[in-house]
Amino acid sequence: MDTIKEGSYLLISSKKSDTYLVKVTENGDFSTHEGKILFKDLIGKPYGCKVKTHLGAEYIILKPTITDFLKFIKRKTQVLYPKDLGFIILKLNLHSGLRMIECGSGSGSATTAFAFALYPEGKLYSYEARPEFINLAKENVKRTGLEQIVEFKNRDIEEGFDEKEVDALFLDVKYPEKFIYHAYNALKPSGNMCVFVPTANQVSDVLKELENYPFALTEVLEIMLRTYKTVPERLRPDDTMIAHTGYLIFTRKIEEQKNGE
Amino acid sequence: MDTIKEGSYLLISSKKSDTYLVKVTENGDFSTHEGKILFKDLIGKPYGCKVKTHLGAEYIILKPTITDFLKFIKRKTQVLYPKDLGFIILKLNLHSGLRMIECGSGSGSATTAFAFALYPEGKLYSYEARPEFINLAKENVKRTGLEQIVEFKNRDIEEGFDEKEVDALFLDVKYPEKFIYHAYNALKPSGNMCVFVPTANQVSDVLKELENYPFALTEVLEIMLRTYKTVPERLRPDDTMIAHTGYLIFTRKIEEQKNGE
Amino acid sequence: MDTIKEGSYLLISSKKSDTYLVKVTENGDFSTHEGKILFKDLIGKPYGCKVKTHLGAEYIILKPTITDFLKFIKRKTQVLYPKDLGFIILKLNLHSGLRMIECGSGSGSATTAFAFALYPEGKLYSYEARPEFINLAKENVKRTGLEQIVEFKNRDIEEGFDEKEVDALFLDVKYPEKFIYHAYNALKPSGNMCVFVPTANQVSDVLKELENYPFALTEVLEIMLRTYKTVPERLRPDDTMIAHTGYLIFTRKIEEQKNGE
Amino acid sequence: MDTIKEGSYLLISSKKSDTYLVKVTENGDFSTHEGKILFKDLIGKPYGCKVKTHLGAEYIILKPTITDFLKFIKRKTQVLYPKDLGFIILKLNLHSGLRMIECGSGSGSATTAFAFALYPEGKLYSYEARPEFINLAKENVKRTGLEQIVEFKNRDIEEGFDEKEVDALFLDVKYPEKFIYHAYNALKPSGNMCVFVPTANQVSDVLKELENYPFALTEVLEIMLRTYKTVPERLRPDDTMIAHTGYLIFTRKIEEQKNGE
Repeated sequence: MDTIKEGSYLLISSKKSDTYLVKVTENGDFSTHEGKILFKDLIGKPYGCKVKTHLGAEYIILKPTITDFLKFIKRKTQVLYPKDLGFIILKLNLHSGLRMIECGSGSGSATTAFAFALYPEGKLYSYEARPEFINLAKENVKRTGLEQIVEFKNRDIEEGFDEKEVDALFLDVKYPEKFIYHAYNALKPSGNMCVFVPTANQVSDVLKELENYPFALTEVLEIMLRTYKTVPERLRPDDTMIAHTGYLIFTRKIEEQKNGE
Repeated sequence: MDTIKEGSYLLISSKKSDTYLVKVTENGDFSTHEGKILFKDLIGKPYGCKVKTHLGAEYIILKPTITDFLKFIKRKTQVLYPKDLGFIILKLNLHSGLRMIECGSGSGSATTAFAFALYPEGKLYSYEARPEFINLAKENVKRTGLEQIVEFKNRDIEEGFDEKEVDALFLDVKYPEKFIYHAYNALKPSGNMCVFVPTANQVSDVLKELENYPFALTEVLEIMLRTYKTVPERLRPDDTMIAHTGYLIFTRKIEEQKNGE
Repeated sequence: MDTIKEGSYLLISSKKSDTYLVKVTENGDFSTHEGKILFKDLIGKPYGCKVKTHLGAEYIILKPTITDFLKFIKRKTQVLYPKDLGFIILKLNLHSGLRMIECGSGSGSATTAFAFALYPEGKLYSYEARPEFINLAKENVKRTGLEQIVEFKNRDIEEGFDEKEVDALFLDVKYPEKFIYHAYNALKPSGNMCVFVPTANQVSDVLKELENYPFALTEVLEIMLRTYKTVPERLRPDDTMIAHTGYLIFTRKIEEQKNGE
Repeated sequence: MDTIKEGSYLLISSKKSDTYLVKVTENGDFSTHEGKILFKDLIGKPYGCKVKTHLGAEYIILKPTITDFLKFIKRKTQVLYPKDLGFIILKLNLHSGLRMIECGSGSGSATTAFAFALYPEGKLYSYEARPEFINLAKENVKRTGLEQIVEFKNRDIEEGFDEKEVDALFLDVKYPEKFIYHAYNALKPSGNMCVFVPTANQVSDVLKELENYPFALTEVLEIMLRTYKTVPERLRPDDTMIAHTGYLIFTRKIEEQKNGE
């Protein structure tokens, strides 16, 4: 049975559905304005239980999902959201056993989601030039216990990638059009690439550069998520929504024809 | 190296990006109005290559991704799309090792995507009352080679599910509010459920029924996908889009408190 | 020539595009943290000019449009937005010469837009039961100089409307399904009605009630507005948007057939 | 009372809500596979009535609204839709008494909507270089009886516009960035302009050019319309929608400062 242990991460929810991601420590506690929950009282309990603070307020203890970890990611950069990441995982065909390159790691949100999809036997090579981000990304991946899937590389990609014949490649950098050549070289034929960019101008720049290499079935799209209030008698969308995270560009490598073929 | 074999599925693309999903047979061929490609000429070649028909038209041979299999699924029902399935996979935290229930199988589109996410060590129990659909779903899953992940059950769920303590549960049936009780019983505490419904009235019905059980953190949402033309000098969305597939309801099971607790 | 007068409304914009709606008074001024602009220095100037505060900060003086008045409407209620109002005006065929009923006035945002569309020879009968709202609506309409178009009626509509044979009718009340009968009676045959409701449940309730009367060509829709950042080198949607204001229901009255016809 | 006359336009709807826009002629008729309706039997009847074909099928006779005329516009070009036109009318502050320039007329859909908004005392100068379009636009405007509002000008705008000090200006041409200078000169200070373009690249081009002139409060946006099925027990969006018509750019002219000011 799946019980709470020292070192476990918990998703704690109040009655009002305010949620918190916390790590269980032997002598630690979770403190709210409604009172305190001692972690030693939780250790050994199953997830999904209700507990009370010393002042009697009820809280719910849940096992965090990958989207919970993504929601509570420590960030110094713009991060990717599950609406985009779930779709990218299916389009890039990510599953156990694959080898994948990502650049850059940023705060590690895409890194975490890709490691989740490649678990247990895949490998993610995650490039990031800025040391402060790579450490943050490492920390965020470590929370999820997926760190063995990821090999972080703290360097820029001006000279290209170390790996060859990777199954999938994800580019989330400021000038992705500069690295299409290196991406092409790192991918195996029929390998899948996704480029994530926030602006329409970047989409045009990437599309132009893709035309210089034998890629096929290029697609550009964006995904929008609209949430609803959960009152059954007054069902309606929430007042506001995220209108934009970025544009997704997908394409697939075709083998360059050699002379005489 | 990953080469084409007898029995492999291929995604074949024309110059105009028309795509076809075909299965390689020893003596078979792929015929178009631009000529024929003999499968025996493809066997042993790597994916990602270009080939020519006997009339000289160029085609591209790609290894199908899970979204390709979903696109070309044989269907007798409304099917789920990658925009929804990718998000569901992350929200339900689907990964190798989990046990999951799905009802109903329908044409097997969600079945295929969930099996993909649970690969290699997870298990999906897929319930479907109508024999003609369950066979179709089996056939669609088999194409992807993921059939060992799925146990199909050809029966209705009036009496509930056989499994207990499953990690995740997906309901895509006409009257999901009738089966919330059974779903609650089959889930492990902290387990994640998704209900997919096409109409707003059904969302209200499900939300009302969920209030009768200790579920938490219920969310309702919809996902929209907008595709763009890929001409860099004239970047713009396509003229039309899918406006609606269905509403997604997510919730998590809380353990019922026993007397004296 | 169109110059600034005492009593004119001005839209004042800072360099950063912060905007303010102000009314010119003989001895008044517009004060900001960047200094003061005396209205007496503006009187007689043309709209569209640049002026400086006594501290030298530059501001722009514009003639307010109807959308500016709507943006700066004094509100005690949820108000309607131009994205919905512009569409309603065209669907209800509002133009000079028509007679229209609206209920309720609320803060007067729809009232203002309809009066604008009916100018100069149309008439809007605006019903509102709550005195505090009707005074607010009157005040908001008066700012735009359109008060002669609107006849406010401070009463509920339990007993129906005073007018017969109106060309158009707009319902924005909590339980619109209760007043479809009265709306039907007030409209002329072929007259156009719009019902505005925030929830999906209300849409269903209204659609059900509409089936009891000879209405035709009923439509339900929603309008979404997505704004973009205006940086030409980094064109992209704004991060967030209004996800929902309400659902619009449009329908048209058919003449009831009398016996013997 | 408003009755059907020779020369009137009718919106005829079948039981299934199929609609037709027809012009009443003395000896004409409306023929369907369900039988015939003679126009002479309709003349003198009120709008909003039900009539039967000679085979007994019931049809509804409605007075067309401006959106009906727009829906049935004869087109040789991409046309603008009410979702965009309604919003443009409010943002450009169009009302009786104003003078406005439009270029190009195209099939006359925007022309028709602007004439409707400027009725009865406004004036629209509509430029179109291609003779075949200007005649089509004239024909479409004439159907609505608004022809006295519009002055068509069959010439290109390389040399600029004839009018000065117009209140509003609408540009829907292939290279709008070339004509910003002329648009600036034709507008009165504080006048409102809208540029309509289908591609993101054009938005960038226009934004860049706008920076060369004293315009203010520039906005870029797009409007999306989602329609619903009208079954109260199964409320849900229609399966598909128009995903894109164009981007709307709004801006306002500021008076150029002369030397010494």
